Amino acid sequence: MTIELKPVATVKNSRNEPIDDNWESIIAEIELASHIPTEAFNNISDFSHLEIIYYFNKVKEEDIVFAGRPRGNPNYPLVGIFGQRKKDRPNTIGLSTVELLEHNGRVIKVKYLDAIDGTPVLDIKPVFKEFQPQSDIKQPVWVADLMKKYWK
Amino acid sequence: MTIELKPVATVKNSRNEPIDDNWESIIAEIELASHIPTEAFNNISDFSHLEIIYYFNKVKEEDIVFAGRPRGNPNYPLVGIFGQRKKDRPNTIGLSTVELLEHNGRVIKVKYLDAIDGTPVLDIKPVFKEFQPQSDIKQPVWVADLMKKYWK
Repeated sequence: MTIELKPVATVKNSRNEPIDDNWESIIAEIELASHIPTEAFNNISDFSHLEIIYYFNKVKEEDIVFAGRPRGNPNYPLVGIFGQRKKDRPNTIGLSTVELLEHNGRVIKVKYLDAIDGTPVLDIKPVFKEFQPQSDIKQPVWVADLMKKYWK
Repeated sequence: MTIELKPVATVKNSRNEPIDDNWESIIAEIELASHIPTEAFNNISDFSHLEIIYYFNKVKEEDIVFAGRPRGNPNYPLVGIFGQRKKDRPNTIGLSTVELLEHNGRVIKVKYLDAIDGTPVLDIKPVFKEFQPQSDIKQPVWVADLMKKYWK
């Protein structure tokens, strides 16, 4: 079974290369693709946060892995790809929860989107409080270590 | 530009028809597709929550809309599709934050997955605390009304 998707929008920002850290200062614009009417963004400013599902289009098929140490760090455990968020994964889909800063016609401006310039966007969803985790989040210790400089 | 994806797993549960509400009691199994090795789930139990990105494969192309009143409710405002989470959307992608209940080989058992039996899964990501919203979530009043019976 093959699923065919068409980007609904494109990311525009100042980062042209995939870099692991320091995403805090990167503000991105997301512009609707030509086949999506402007009304798709109607009233989007009623929400403070959005989920952006995007496509890591620069990942090569041969780079995709099914398990490994996060960032190749020998101090981290061997973890299956579905216990990691790295881009070199089956289907190479990315997902970020972003803050919506501004909406202007066919463009929204967002913070905390860790995708580089030109990234195709597959979907945009508003964050509902009712879909947030309803219990405490548990995660292994390597996550906090890996994320130390992510939002800097 | 067309993006081709292949399901990495399939949802198995007791719900065969798309129904809007009462998802609380639905426990789902997610089983890896045959081309994904079992190691892709290694150490996934270190996490309490996962993000499941899936494909609403029953939606017909002609049902997809770009704006409308959520659930067709005349009391709700006209909202663009990217300010709603309904399934009849460009690319028909769904996204749920679920609780991981159990991991057994090629199968995980989860709660709060609002996808019906047979739904193809596109990706599975662990929830990192560091990717949660860093500020208060704002949403319009219709959301709480629409979600009243969702988790019942």
